[in-house]
Amino acid sequence: MQSPDPQKLCIHTITTKGWSLEEALDQYLAHGVKGISVWQNAIEEMGAKKAGELLASYDIEVVSYVRGGFFPSSSKEKREEALAHNRQMIEDAAAIGAPLLVLVCGAEPQQSLEESRAQIEAGIEQLLPFAREHKVKLGIEPLHPMYADTRSAINTLKQGNDIAERLEDEYVGVVVDVYHLWWEENLKAEILRAGQKDNLLAYHICDWKYPPEDMLNDRGLMGDGCIPLAKIRSWVEEAGFTGFHEVEVFSHRYWAMDQEAYLKKIIDAYHTKS
Amino acid sequence: MQSPDPQKLCIHTITTKGWSLEEALDQYLAHGVKGISVWQNAIEEMGAKKAGELLASYDIEVVSYVRGGFFPSSSKEKREEALAHNRQMIEDAAAIGAPLLVLVCGAEPQQSLEESRAQIEAGIEQLLPFAREHKVKLGIEPLHPMYADTRSAINTLKQGNDIAERLEDEYVGVVVDVYHLWWEENLKAEILRAGQKDNLLAYHICDWKYPPEDMLNDRGLMGDGCIPLAKIRSWVEEAGFTGFHEVEVFSHRYWAMDQEAYLKKIIDAYHTKS
Repeated sequence: MQSPDPQKLCIHTITTKGWSLEEALDQYLAHGVKGISVWQNAIEEMGAKKAGELLASYDIEVVSYVRGGFFPSSSKEKREEALAHNRQMIEDAAAIGAPLLVLVCGAEPQQSLEESRAQIEAGIEQLLPFAREHKVKLGIEPLHPMYADTRSAINTLKQGNDIAERLEDEYVGVVVDVYHLWWEENLKAEILRAGQKDNLLAYHICDWKYPPEDMLNDRGLMGDGCIPLAKIRSWVEEAGFTGFHEVEVFSHRYWAMDQEAYLKKIIDAYHTKS
Repeated sequence: MQSPDPQKLCIHTITTKGWSLEEALDQYLAHGVKGISVWQNAIEEMGAKKAGELLASYDIEVVSYVRGGFFPSSSKEKREEALAHNRQMIEDAAAIGAPLLVLVCGAEPQQSLEESRAQIEAGIEQLLPFAREHKVKLGIEPLHPMYADTRSAINTLKQGNDIAERLEDEYVGVVVDVYHLWWEENLKAEILRAGQKDNLLAYHICDWKYPPEDMLNDRGLMGDGCIPLAKIRSWVEEAGFTGFHEVEVFSHRYWAMDQEAYLKKIIDAYHTKS
């Protein structure tokens, strides 16, 4: 298996949560990282406009803005609020120069997953004209079934592909995150399907420790766990994807490390274990 | 939706872990519970023969013995050891009068899920003559994908059905546990499929708290969470299943309660929330 392209490494700001956006930019650049995906919390204080100026002053590509979504609710009013919030997120994505807004689609435990999925699809559909106007694509990120209660009713790439294909719009597609999808039975076929339909918008990497100590913040770095990363990357490449490989790790353990030492570890893991 | 049949309530000994087998039998019987599923730890000290005599002295049905499985390993020797252990579990199931051994099929994080699945299928196939001889059926219990690392490579009812149908033997079938499967996209169709092929051997209930505090021991009692229990039960009934509804709850919170008060709570939840 070939090593991944060194030019394709992107890091999510949440991965090095202790750093301000400016610190992250300085460090990523100093260590040769070519792409950054920006989480909302990283620009909250300065606002999207100032963050956009800051990002533009660095020689680094803004890969995505994270994260919109959370469409379902049994309350119509809350669904409208979610749409308004997503419009704001699209504006902010445009302001920071991100071509993609990642969607964690949401789930409402008081209603069926089918109902939540229908509300997700309706929500995305309503946002599409606004997304097109701002040149920001919407990336449906299926989440692991362990998050089907409150975080997302889209729990397989198949479900993400189904919605993206029904909406059939260049401004909507899917995000493949290995943490959420590594167990899916027909993952290769679904990745190829996403590629064939031009719906494969982003590729997120990390690892699944066995077992994780908690359900949210114990992700592993590539090589720490059991995800067949090189194999999944080969499928993503076979699907025609040429974008960045985005390292997105939530980890109490790694957040507690010296962040520059951690960044070196990330870069090494990217080159040798992904 | 009709209430569930009061005669169909079965409780897993692990649910009231603090009780010895004898205490559990006394209490279940005193409160009108008609079925018991016995976990290995509950009979470890007295052994299967004595446990069988004890169980036979009570007017209660032994529904299943829990749990065999854990077939996959990258080591052939360990796979052989697993088979030997499963033969012992089948003998013990027969000794306690259980017509079913529940299989948590296992997974080996050092190899692909496909490989683990093939080893699971081969393992079950090898056990079938022995199972038939002892009149103990083998129930493939698909586990939630969050356990795909080390506990089971069978993570959907579809996968369980696929294996059961390929093996096509009255001594193998599937176990539907709502905790593991509630999120599955085509769950109704897969339950009906299991029924049509005479593969639906057991039905386990509890609830999914949102979110669980940990990945193992924070299951909810029926009504505590977001699983559409009455709906899933209606599918199981539509599939022709007439067996027990087995309450299987691992919960630090409930284990810490007075166990008789908890038993009353279980019975009430069974009648009103399942």
